[in-house]
Amino acid sequence: MPYAIDETHDPKLESWVESANDPDTDFPIQNLPMCEFELIDPDEDEDDRPRLGIRVGDSIIDISALEEARLFDGAVEAESFYYWCIHNAARASLADRAGLRTRISSLLSTTNDALRSNKWLCSKAIIPVSRTAFVYPDSEIRDYTDFYASKFHATNVGSMFRPDNPLLPNYKWIPVGYHGRASSIVPSGTPIIRPSGQTIEGNMGPESVPSFGPCKLLDYELEMGAIIARGNELGTPVSMAEAEDHMLGLCILNDWSARDMQKWEYQPLGPFLAKNFASTVSPYIVTMEALAPFRTPAMDRTDGDPDPMPHLDSPANRESGGFDIKLEVFLSSQQMREKGLDPKRISRGNFKDMYWTVAQMIAHHTSNGCNLQPGDLLGSGTISGPTRESRGCLLELTWDGDPFANPPKIVPGTQRTPIELPTGESRKFLADGDEIIMRAYCERDGFRRIGFGECRGVIHPSHEAR
Amino acid sequence: MPYAIDETHDPKLESWVESANDPDTDFPIQNLPMCEFELIDPDEDEDDRPRLGIRVGDSIIDISALEEARLFDGAVEAESFYYWCIHNAARASLADRAGLRTRISSLLSTTNDALRSNKWLCSKAIIPVSRTAFVYPDSEIRDYTDFYASKFHATNVGSMFRPDNPLLPNYKWIPVGYHGRASSIVPSGTPIIRPSGQTIEGNMGPESVPSFGPCKLLDYELEMGAIIARGNELGTPVSMAEAEDHMLGLCILNDWSARDMQKWEYQPLGPFLAKNFASTVSPYIVTMEALAPFRTPAMDRTDGDPDPMPHLDSPANRESGGFDIKLEVFLSSQQMREKGLDPKRISRGNFKDMYWTVAQMIAHHTSNGCNLQPGDLLGSGTISGPTRESRGCLLELTWDGDPFANPPKIVPGTQRTPIELPTGESRKFLADGDEIIMRAYCERDGFRRIGFGECRGVIHPSHEAR
Repeated sequence: MPYAIDETHDPKLESWVESANDPDTDFPIQNLPMCEFELIDPDEDEDDRPRLGIRVGDSIIDISALEEARLFDGAVEAESFYYWCIHNAARASLADRAGLRTRISSLLSTTNDALRSNKWLCSKAIIPVSRTAFVYPDSEIRDYTDFYASKFHATNVGSMFRPDNPLLPNYKWIPVGYHGRASSIVPSGTPIIRPSGQTIEGNMGPESVPSFGPCKLLDYELEMGAIIARGNELGTPVSMAEAEDHMLGLCILNDWSARDMQKWEYQPLGPFLAKNFASTVSPYIVTMEALAPFRTPAMDRTDGDPDPMPHLDSPANRESGGFDIKLEVFLSSQQMREKGLDPKRISRGNFKDMYWTVAQMIAHHTSNGCNLQPGDLLGSGTISGPTRESRGCLLELTWDGDPFANPPKIVPGTQRTPIELPTGESRKFLADGDEIIMRAYCERDGFRRIGFGECRGVIHPSHEAR
Repeated sequence: MPYAIDETHDPKLESWVESANDPDTDFPIQNLPMCEFELIDPDEDEDDRPRLGIRVGDSIIDISALEEARLFDGAVEAESFYYWCIHNAARASLADRAGLRTRISSLLSTTNDALRSNKWLCSKAIIPVSRTAFVYPDSEIRDYTDFYASKFHATNVGSMFRPDNPLLPNYKWIPVGYHGRASSIVPSGTPIIRPSGQTIEGNMGPESVPSFGPCKLLDYELEMGAIIARGNELGTPVSMAEAEDHMLGLCILNDWSARDMQKWEYQPLGPFLAKNFASTVSPYIVTMEALAPFRTPAMDRTDGDPDPMPHLDSPANRESGGFDIKLEVFLSSQQMREKGLDPKRISRGNFKDMYWTVAQMIAHHTSNGCNLQPGDLLGSGTISGPTRESRGCLLELTWDGDPFANPPKIVPGTQRTPIELPTGESRKFLADGDEIIMRAYCERDGFRRIGFGECRGVIHPSHEAR
């Protein structure tokens, strides 16, 4: 695998940015995730443009300020670095990226005074996170593809939409995916306006007559997003051996879904308005380099599952194509917030429970010559695991029946089990005022815990309801 | 309707750019379509950047050169115009756009000497089309949506993919659409590399085992593309009354399709690798202003078709939501070109034969709050009419059976009728070396004919076959 464990992952490394040494922080010196940020309230002499930052503890390091001060001296070529991160990743090599991580880790560590001793530069380049807002990915994501890579999710949902045929025959052969909408990808914290659309009562049939109005079955989907660093030329597939070289890192993704609109519209060309009203991403990209200690084997092919075809297979992928990333979803209703109650955790999962790896998604996506570009986002699809607690959306969480029993128990039109909230409220789907908070982090003995921060969004009423 | 017939459509208008007065040109002074171009072989003192041009006769007018010479004096504010065309259409009003058209029409007409008499400026600003290459839409299209708006096409194809259920119940209620891939949209003339992918023999079933290799059933799809000029804010639907204000104009679109890959992959989330290896657009955007004389009523709802729901309906759309645009598809095999034979016309259709109008596509797309952005491309879906001759792809053209008979005659697994070429070759689908050429033009008594130019692409062998 191209991303190795090295001295930057040493759990004994500490930073002179003291908040990075808090054992509970998502952002120790071993993490160093990227973001694009701007100052909320810049002074007259401060740069007010969006720019690239790296989070450490409770601060954002302004990379451009370090660059201007020539603190990267040879570790990474400034122009190439900028192009790589923002516009033209093809210019930067993996060595450049590793060099950057090593250099920033060194500059922030307690054993290095080069930055720490320059008080003027520190005051310019080290910015409290409370003074920043995240602008990524407003203008950077051009194409967004969403996959469907959890077999548990595909089976759960398939058994509701197609009770007689939950997992289609192509599922075990191709990482099923579809194109999503790039323009409506929003950063964590952006309000989500309840969409309106056409829906029907009951199942689709020749006599169906839809009505138009606010979505009644609004859901979230817990996903991880992979950000592409280096593109490929149109007509030139990316092999499994090279696939991970094209990845910058991962973020959390909430693929909000209007289930009632989805049921009516999705045949024959797939989901459209049920998904494209908004997708939320967490502000930080945790790099492939940072994730090196937390890789896992790709999911075992069991129960007669076929081996992946050669263009979707590699020894490295079998051995460590997965990611051991713990995931949590919390719900906080408006009443809960008004009463000062903590958000309620409603599910726990792990990104390692995916049938298809991100490398396989990239190899499949480009196998026909399709070109990926720097900044593209690939969503994993809803991450559901084998247990009820690990289901990644309300549609699955509040649904009764057990498709993983042997033989599978699929109960069309079964009872639903609402989620009970501490205020006495209950939820089958999202109500106005509900906030969904997703968290993700990696833990392993002998390593520092690193995290992704949060992916949040509050549901606002539809226009019709105002 | 926001686009009126005015003096710029007067058929008696002539230009001092004499090639514009050729009765057969697609580009008389009444057309004035836009393109983004660069010089193929610039001299040292010439601008080598991509920039905006307007085609007239056999020349491209370099808009920036006219701007520098202050020839727009008040007709259109230069900065606002540039932002509108390239990056920020929200700033330009419909009046700005109409003003620009009026001013350019005037500058090029035989009755105006302001530009014609400035030989130095003419030599800079009026460029033979043979010296230019089209770069649009390489970097401009961020999101691409493809619709499925021809009921004839949907019924023809539906009867092959789902013989028992060709036109799904949602079809007559929503302009069915899905997200396409923006990165692989290429300008006319770009070679199309035959994609590889997974395909199966026969129909999909639990025992299906795919193989991987070059696509065997490669097809074109004749479409028109609508370019968005002005975006809408996320969360703010665009009404039918406003929908056409958001359109810049139309181009020809070839949505190349790998039918064998499509059959295996498209359920449940829609087409993906079968489409995203390439889509070709013609170089010119024929503006909504130029198309004003060629509007037609939206297609009649007949045979018990429901009226559109209120958010997809308006009196103006019923009266003139369609476009009377004649369409032709030509095929030229490598053997035909080697023997000097003309391309063979294989179909003729008309864009007025669509069940859903472009305004309805925009209103539907944004009805859930989804935001469109300047430069977005909306494909119409394959344009097929009621006759055999007007079928817009090979899948339909070479297929026997008549789904439009009453009652419909749907023949699963019917014979195919290949297209015979003058070399003795025949085609059910595209062979390596085949070129597809699409043309589109508008004709109406009392008006000058205007055209879209051509949308071309030659099939190159797959990587595996080299």
